[in-house]
Amino acid sequence: MSPPLKIAVAGLGTVGAGVLTLLNRHAELIERRCGRRIVVAAVSARDRRRDRGVDVSGMRWYDDAAAMASEAEAEAVVELIGGADGVAREVCEKAIARGRHLVTANKALLAIHGAALARAAESRSVALAFEAAVAGGIPIIKALREGLAANRLSRVYGILNGTSNYILTAMRESRRGFSEVLAEAQKLGYAEADPGFDVDGIDAAHKLAILASVAFGCEVNFSGVYVEGIRHVSLSDIEYAAELGYRIKLLGTARMTRHGLEQRVHPCMVPAEAPIAHVEGVFNAVVAEGDFVGTTMFQGRGAGAGPTASAVVADLMDIACGRQSPAFSVPATALAVLPSAPMARHRGAYYVRLMVVDRPGVIAEITAALRDEQVSLESMLQRGRNPVDAVPVVLTTHETEEEQMIRALAAIAKLGSVREPPRMIRIIEEL
Amino acid sequence: MSPPLKIAVAGLGTVGAGVLTLLNRHAELIERRCGRRIVVAAVSARDRRRDRGVDVSGMRWYDDAAAMASEAEAEAVVELIGGADGVAREVCEKAIARGRHLVTANKALLAIHGAALARAAESRSVALAFEAAVAGGIPIIKALREGLAANRLSRVYGILNGTSNYILTAMRESRRGFSEVLAEAQKLGYAEADPGFDVDGIDAAHKLAILASVAFGCEVNFSGVYVEGIRHVSLSDIEYAAELGYRIKLLGTARMTRHGLEQRVHPCMVPAEAPIAHVEGVFNAVVAEGDFVGTTMFQGRGAGAGPTASAVVADLMDIACGRQSPAFSVPATALAVLPSAPMARHRGAYYVRLMVVDRPGVIAEITAALRDEQVSLESMLQRGRNPVDAVPVVLTTHETEEEQMIRALAAIAKLGSVREPPRMIRIIEEL
Repeated sequence: MSPPLKIAVAGLGTVGAGVLTLLNRHAELIERRCGRRIVVAAVSARDRRRDRGVDVSGMRWYDDAAAMASEAEAEAVVELIGGADGVAREVCEKAIARGRHLVTANKALLAIHGAALARAAESRSVALAFEAAVAGGIPIIKALREGLAANRLSRVYGILNGTSNYILTAMRESRRGFSEVLAEAQKLGYAEADPGFDVDGIDAAHKLAILASVAFGCEVNFSGVYVEGIRHVSLSDIEYAAELGYRIKLLGTARMTRHGLEQRVHPCMVPAEAPIAHVEGVFNAVVAEGDFVGTTMFQGRGAGAGPTASAVVADLMDIACGRQSPAFSVPATALAVLPSAPMARHRGAYYVRLMVVDRPGVIAEITAALRDEQVSLESMLQRGRNPVDAVPVVLTTHETEEEQMIRALAAIAKLGSVREPPRMIRIIEEL
Repeated sequence: MSPPLKIAVAGLGTVGAGVLTLLNRHAELIERRCGRRIVVAAVSARDRRRDRGVDVSGMRWYDDAAAMASEAEAEAVVELIGGADGVAREVCEKAIARGRHLVTANKALLAIHGAALARAAESRSVALAFEAAVAGGIPIIKALREGLAANRLSRVYGILNGTSNYILTAMRESRRGFSEVLAEAQKLGYAEADPGFDVDGIDAAHKLAILASVAFGCEVNFSGVYVEGIRHVSLSDIEYAAELGYRIKLLGTARMTRHGLEQRVHPCMVPAEAPIAHVEGVFNAVVAEGDFVGTTMFQGRGAGAGPTASAVVADLMDIACGRQSPAFSVPATALAVLPSAPMARHRGAYYVRLMVVDRPGVIAEITAALRDEQVSLESMLQRGRNPVDAVPVVLTTHETEEEQMIRALAAIAKLGSVREPPRMIRIIEEL
């Protein structure tokens, strides 16, 4: 039996408490699987007196997480504080600099400083592990780094934010609008008081940048992610989607194009029969397409104490067993710096919803604007008739270039008969 | 740069040729990810002259795979011959006995001799890797062994046979019967000339026994698997399933019950909205339920040269990188021997289709037979009316014990008004 793996845990919020609970409850299981125990030698949090439902006696307490990273007798440091900079970053950098393995659930930090941390970890021959940072309990980082490692991947995409997916699902199922469902999600604890991070796509963009780096062996490039959230998705869009055979999902997509690496987070119409369309509520899912394996999909809970603890402890067990792989699937010194494909060069099909005055000639004006930009119409729906108020007109296009679509929409927005800003949602067909 | 990992490949059928193609095409990618090359030093197949579309010059050729396992200069042997005994087994045992790592895609062999092979491999400190044996390219073994290792699993289940899933999907989509679709599948190469292995559930049972062992850390127990295939599933069952809100899938399920480990392969009605209901055609999927992670699902192609090669080479890359885990997730010497839960003790809901004479009193006789065994009815459908021929009656029950259900069906089968053997399909509700 090897000596135990001693760890120090920075941050005892929901996830930190979950990690301690798991390590305690499954101590025997872990020992049997790893051939050694994992022992929490030190913990750090702001308020020592708070009851977290876990026993921290016997662990050395630090009020200062950075001091713990510098001093604690531990082979691995677990960072669960969060935030792209500040204490979290300090903890990570200090731990690595001291030659400690680092396990973190911090997607914001990795999205910004991932490549630098990987280089530092590699130069000290320690692990940089972050399964919990993307898609919660789904072991997608391991799948990309090891399970699918023999493939050249062409695309990864997924539902990376449970809050947004919960809201879109609830809107569809209960036929309610965004604001009403968001308020409910906040009451239920599925959405933060300040929901922007989730519903504006930032959180999904952090995770996508990390996924893309692991999938394509390139430096994390968060600033290269095009981001659009779900605030503009209306109940009527969701209902039109159903009528057209789609569901609306907030997807993060990364793929190699001839213009470079395309990374984008935005609402998407996906075919209703596609497996990912049935990933509902707070669940996350990631699809990876490889040249040998074909299409694979991984789904599960993307957040919460249990799933996140599951991922953090899996990383610790890899460390305890001596299993290592490069953080972003190739050595940090070999990470490529890929050009970002501009969103203007994106090609795909589009759904457009317009609110127009119901009078002869309107459709002719709209279709002329599309024609002027070589955008080819696939379908058109004009259901309501109303001599007074504006009525919705819904269009879908064949594959076209984003730049042309944007120009056509700008021209359409200027038409006198179009009464609200046009709403556009990208369609993903090739699943 | 470490010296290359030299391997010997036994069996150059579709999968073997796929492995050689992958290793050749992605030599550089593999070297970048592993820090070393993987080199095929020796190969073995029956007919040296056959054109397999891969270049085997520079590799030492063996007509005798067992001789290769005994002699070849290689650190790892890849067994792709197949079959539970005979040459395949000899190759595996010899390779391990010589202290070579073993990678195999052979589910029949592992289902029967898995525990013994794991003990042998462990005593020689070599890897026994078999990602390709279950669910093709889906890295489910790695997920259970490492990615979800921090969890106690309560249940694993999945669509483990692509041929059966293709047939059930095609029956539903094209509204045709089993035999017609099977014949088509044979013509398309999705089903073997002798389809029993696939459609009678044997192949799925092999895979389930392996999955259960990895999930629950117990010895592989293939003989403990209850097996029922899809030959009796009729188009009308599929259509009734749709009407009742279900789809029919051939599922393999393993779960811990108070009677022991329940392992079963049989057609199942799954809720139409469940993610696994949308795993169609030749795709496979595995669901794992853990106490911390919750429900996770993994899907992808379950067979074919590309997906299988992807899994085989991922195993080789683990070996090249020095990543090891116990074959069945705990050390072979610690594998539990669990009692098999008898199928008679299974509890669940049931769908029953009867062909009855359409006359007053028939339903009363049937419901009395159910009542006599304390089987509680959930719904009843009698659509057709026909004074001459038998008409279908469809029932669904609440949760009941299999033994009672079987007794009730035996009683019903004896009723004079029941003209064909009753057909029963288990319903899975708690997804």
